[in-house]
Order: sequence, then structure tokens, then C-alpha cells
Amino acid sequence: MEIIKGGVTAAKGFKATGQYVGIKKKRKDMALVFSLVPAKSAGTFTTNVVKAAPVKWDIKIIKENETAQAVVLNSGVANACTGAEGEVNNFKMAEAVAESLNIPTEAVITASTGVIGKQLPIDVIVEGAKILSDSLDDSIESGLLAAEAIMTTDTNSKECAVTFYVGDKLVTIGGMAKGSGMIHPNMATMLGVVTTDVAISKALLQEAISENVKDTFNMISVDRDTSTNDSLIILANGLAGNIEIIEKNEDYQNFCKALNFVTKDLAKKMAADGEGATKLFETVVVGAKDKEQAVTLSKSIITSSLVKTAVYGNDANWGRILCAMGYSGAQFDPDLVDLFIESVDGKLKLVENGMATDYSEEFATKILSAKEVRAIADVKMGYATATAWGCDLTYDYVKINADYRS
Amino acid sequence: MEIIKGGVTAAKGFKATGQYVGIKKKRKDMALVFSLVPAKSAGTFTTNVVKAAPVKWDIKIIKENETAQAVVLNSGVANACTGAEGEVNNFKMAEAVAESLNIPTEAVITASTGVIGKQLPIDVIVEGAKILSDSLDDSIESGLLAAEAIMTTDTNSKECAVTFYVGDKLVTIGGMAKGSGMIHPNMATMLGVVTTDVAISKALLQEAISENVKDTFNMISVDRDTSTNDSLIILANGLAGNIEIIEKNEDYQNFCKALNFVTKDLAKKMAADGEGATKLFETVVVGAKDKEQAVTLSKSIITSSLVKTAVYGNDANWGRILCAMGYSGAQFDPDLVDLFIESVDGKLKLVENGMATDYSEEFATKILSAKEVRAIADVKMGYATATAWGCDLTYDYVKINADYRS
Repeated sequence: MEIIKGGVTAAKGFKATGQYVGIKKKRKDMALVFSLVPAKSAGTFTTNVVKAAPVKWDIKIIKENETAQAVVLNSGVANACTGAEGEVNNFKMAEAVAESLNIPTEAVITASTGVIGKQLPIDVIVEGAKILSDSLDDSIESGLLAAEAIMTTDTNSKECAVTFYVGDKLVTIGGMAKGSGMIHPNMATMLGVVTTDVAISKALLQEAISENVKDTFNMISVDRDTSTNDSLIILANGLAGNIEIIEKNEDYQNFCKALNFVTKDLAKKMAADGEGATKLFETVVVGAKDKEQAVTLSKSIITSSLVKTAVYGNDANWGRILCAMGYSGAQFDPDLVDLFIESVDGKLKLVENGMATDYSEEFATKILSAKEVRAIADVKMGYATATAWGCDLTYDYVKINADYRS
Repeated sequence: MEIIKGGVTAAKGFKATGQYVGIKKKRKDMALVFSLVPAKSAGTFTTNVVKAAPVKWDIKIIKENETAQAVVLNSGVANACTGAEGEVNNFKMAEAVAESLNIPTEAVITASTGVIGKQLPIDVIVEGAKILSDSLDDSIESGLLAAEAIMTTDTNSKECAVTFYVGDKLVTIGGMAKGSGMIHPNMATMLGVVTTDVAISKALLQEAISENVKDTFNMISVDRDTSTNDSLIILANGLAGNIEIIEKNEDYQNFCKALNFVTKDLAKKMAADGEGATKLFETVVVGAKDKEQAVTLSKSIITSSLVKTAVYGNDANWGRILCAMGYSGAQFDPDLVDLFIESVDGKLKLVENGMATDYSEEFATKILSAKEVRAIADVKMGYATATAWGCDLTYDYVKINADYRS
């Protein structure tokens, strides 16, 4: 597997673009991804009871159709809590893209992100669909334009692409995603689009992406708020020319591995760019009784406001980590826990068998001052492990969210 | 029922005090509550797997003994994650108080709050126990000293007292509590002590307090972090002279009602004084299918970082409230929900049947600018209701917790 430059246009036969069409005040606000040929489609979506109009549409068309050919995304307005009018507007958005590209409306996947409860400015979007369709391109730069156009409070665009072989055919997977608040994906993520030229059956594509998110997007959290719009979409157009993957053979495993690399990379970029974040915070739980307990423990640490503020303050206040593990619902013996912190600046054991070691606070602060820090908890109950990614809780998170709409 | 001045010394036969003994840098750090005669004891404690040494001690002695006679509390060090040494220190703290007051060690309930993972400065505490025992007094001022001595990041002390009649006897209930971070009580609260002179059986006293917390302390949250030290303790010494309450008659109901007033008042004071908070935020869910769903929904709203920052910014960003309800795990139809906000400045319907009404943003901001604001969600699924209390999420929460230990 090789890491390459680019995002959704990296794989063969995919074009994209991103533009300012007039939904937001100034920044790019609409993106389009297009496959030259119909592509197998799969996706995972928010488990929030309150589902945005595009989420309802996508679940329906991905289920009912073998393939899709375009993904249209807008930022600025989430089209959630918008009732029947919101669903009509979403259909019009898909329809406008379909007409411009001369494909069926049911081949157009939609995604929206932004303020909840506002209607889409549908005239602007219908007009935008034409402009976007005309400017589609397969360059790396066009992929980047799309990644930029889906940003809201993100401070940087998020892309990743890799190549690997299926038989003698070089296959590419590329993707883009955006954060950065209301991030606590559950069976999904905010907005993510992955494109690949692999040939694979729709059933296996769906299974691969559903399994994948458990260890990637579902393991990140910025603020424990599971969005109404979380969508991860994958399109596979088969243009790599490999023999179609139709069973869980070595090719399938290789595809899953490469997919995991791309989605984990995007997920970590989302966590690191969480609203107001100054650093990426990773928690690794080892020695758990089973996978579920490992996941519960690592997510409980990563989401604790008290742990997150301590990480912001470079303060090795490990009692808060043990406290967050304690109320997580997972069963363990506090008197067995070992706790470490780690970064490029070194590794330090803070707790052994539930009690403080004689560690240097100064060294602990140095470790925690890095841009990426890791906490490792060994609960010594078994062999399961899980890793979660989040960020620190800062003044800027409060600032961004106290006046998000202004 | 009449509201009176005072706290833990309001009821007959209770003395208290609070002093600076040298655990913290400057502020009062040790408190003692004493009943002239053995008092029926009951309590509720944290459900965190990681339990502080005093919590383990209290659960044991309250279970094994009909009565207790003193509660000793310290702030500054939580005596949690301190292993066998922590348990020995906790015993020494109880023993020192017992010797000074000439009562059995098993009659001394203990409570600690502060930094996790540090050992108690036990010599200072043993010395302090004598000083405190010598300065016990039944005045209102002494009760206040105790309430002040258990504060950590609290900005004010929290007391409440009421009187009511059982037969022809005037009975008093008084209490004190402290917050204000790591507050998400689950079957308990940070530290709370309630004293009453009512005569009641131990079994009914425990049942009353266990039922009580479900609608009071367990319905508040500052930061979704359930502490290792949560303890709510109640002592009933019988000195009011009423015929002992031994069944769930009208006297029991009156007692529960008065107890509910005191604990709800203390709970709301804790929520309003949450770390960094500028206002009390109350969420009322009506029309839920059952009590459990109502509780789940109201707590999900009150704990959402995005809702809390919007409340701080006086921003009627109601989509975040619907979003928090949606990921709570409760089942409801988003298209039926009505949503209101309310304060001393008025009441406003923001959402009707899941969609925005044509409300005035200006008036919404005015309502949200009050010191106490309420969100009311009607989910129209049944007849159950629940109320939760929290606070806004502010710069100061981050500030306080980024350098808590310094």
C-alpha cells in the first residue's frame, strides 16, 4: 500500500469541484463528486432519531439502487428539522444535479451540513448545481476544492488517498471529510465521501464500510454530540479493472486494510481539528475483558470535559482519567489499572495498580505539551484493546459555539 | 411547611463547625457535624466503579449500624485512588473525631472532596479533629462555617432548611451541599449532609433518601462527569419528639415532601454554581412515554456541550436541543415536538411539530439573558415528565479546569 496525494479525485474516473454559490456569506459552500460510470454505492448514517432530509434520501436510494453516480454536498445549512419542505428541497437539489449531468435523480446522493432548522436557499442551490456540473475536473486541485467547500468551522480541509494492488491491477481509494463540532459519530460521521476504482460487489462494499467505521469514525469525539447529518458515503466504480471482489478473500482483506487507512486518517484529522482544539488526544485501552468494554472505556476518557480541559492545560491530572473510566459503565478493578502518557517527547507511567507512581510532574507537562498526545490505560482484565481519538476542550470551543449562528 | 434560615444546625440537637486546619492553602478545609444523641443514618453514594476511601467506609458503617453521631468532611484532597494507605488514613480521620467526641469510631461518617490521587495530610487532619470538636456550636453561623469549609471551586455556600409538623410536633430538616465540577450525580451527589430531628425508622429514612435523589441530585449535571466521591448523608436524631414514623402514612409523605424541598433547593444551587456558570439552566420534558424516557431526554439536553454554549451565548439555537434529544436513546417522533423557552422575561414557542415557528430572535435572546432560564419540550407521546438542572458552558469552566491543580 502506498500513500499518495489527493482525495476524492485520486481514483480513476472520478471528477469533483467545490465553489461558492451563495449559501454562506463568503466561503465555498457547495461541492460535487461525479463518477464517469455508475459506481456501487454504500454508506453509513447517523443513528440520531432526528435525521436530516438528505440522510433520509440517501438511506432510501442506496438501499433501492445498485449504483449511484454523483454526490452533491452543501455547507451552511443542514436541512435538518425542516419537515416536508426540507425533503422537497433536498429532492430538488438532487434533481438539479441529475439534469445537469444527465443521470437519474436516484443516482444523486446528497449531504448537507450547517445550521439546523433553516430551509435550504433552493434557488441558489439549483443554480449552483449547473455551475458545479460545468466545472467538474479530475485534477487533485478539484478534489481539494470539494474538500474545502464542505468545511464549516473546520480550520483545514481533510483528504487522504492510497493505492494498492488487487491481482495485477493498481487500485486507488481516496476520500474527504469535514468536522468539527457536533462530532460524536455513531455508526457514521459528520460528512465523509470515499471514492475508489476497485471492482467489488455492493454487498461487500456495504459490509466493508459498516465494519470499518466501528474502529475509525465511530471512535472519535469532539463534544459527545451525535449530529443529525452524519453521513459516510463510498462509491466504487470498478475502473481499476480488477476481477470483481465478490467474496471475503485476500483481495477483500487488502481492500479493507487500505480503506481503514484512509478512513482512520480522515477521522484523526477531524479529531485534531475539533472546534477550538489545540491538539489531538488519543486514548488506548489495553487488557480489557472484551472489545465492547475497551471501546466504552476509551470513549469515556476521550469525551470527559474534565480530562479534555486538563489536556488543554498540559496537566497530568490522571485522577480524572480514572474517574471517567469508573463511571463509563465498564467493569474493572481500579486497583489493577496502569496508566501511561506518551508523545514525541517521551513516555511516562503515571499510575501503577491504581496508585500514583513517583513521576516527574515537569516531564509529564513536557509530554502533554506536544501537538499529539496519547493516554494508555492497561486494565489487566483480558486481551481486548481499543483506540479513540478526540481533542482538548478550550476557550475557543466555547467562543465558537456561544455565537455559532452570528 | 415553612422555609427558615440555616443549614445543618437548624434541626434540634445538631452542632457543627468549619475551620481552616491546613489541607488547602488558605481557605477553610475541614467541617464537622455532630448530633447530641445517636441519629438514624442513611445515605446514597456514587455509582462510579472507582470509589473514594470515605465512600467505602460510609457504605459499610451505615449498613452495619442503626445510628451514627458525627460527619467529618474535608476539602482539598479527595482521598480517591489512594489504595490501602488511603483507607487507613480515612479510618484515622474517623478515629480522631470519635476520640475527641467520646463516641464509637463506627459512629463517624466521613467525606472528602478535592484532588484525586493524593494522600490526606493525616497529621494535620488528626490535629484538626480536636480543634473542630472543641468549637462545635448549634448556631446558624456554625452551620454556615461547615457549609463554607466543604467548598472547592464553589463560589458560594449552599444551605437550606424547612420546618413542618408531624402530629403536633414541629420538625426541622436542614442541609448543606457543595459542587461544582465533576458533577453528574448518579444515585448520589458530590457532598451533601442533611440533618433532621424527626423520629423515623432507619429503613424508611433510607428509602426516603434513595427515592428522593432520583428527582433531585440525580437530575443535575455540570459536566457529565460522575465523581468518585459523591455522597449524600442524612441523620435523623428524633429530638422533635414526634411519634416515630414507621410506616408510609401521611407523616411519611409530609416528611418526604419537606425533604424533597431541601434537597431540590440544594441541587439547584449546585447546578447554578457549576464551575464557570453564569446561569441556571432548567430543562422540562413533558408528554414522554414513561418516566425513564423523560429523564433520558431532559438529561441529554442539559448535558450537551453545544446546548450549554448556546445558552451561554443567549442564542436560541434550538436545533441543538432537538439534536441532543435525538441522540439520547429515547424514542420519539421529531415531527411532533413542541419546544419553548422561558424565564422571568417571558415565554416563547420556538418549535411547533418539529419545525421553527415564526418567533422573534430578539425576544428569544432577551428571555435567554436571564439568570435562570428554562427549556420545555413537549414530545406528545404520553404523560410522563421530568425536570433536570444544569448550567451554561463558559470560558471560565475551561479556565478553572485547565489548571485545577495549580
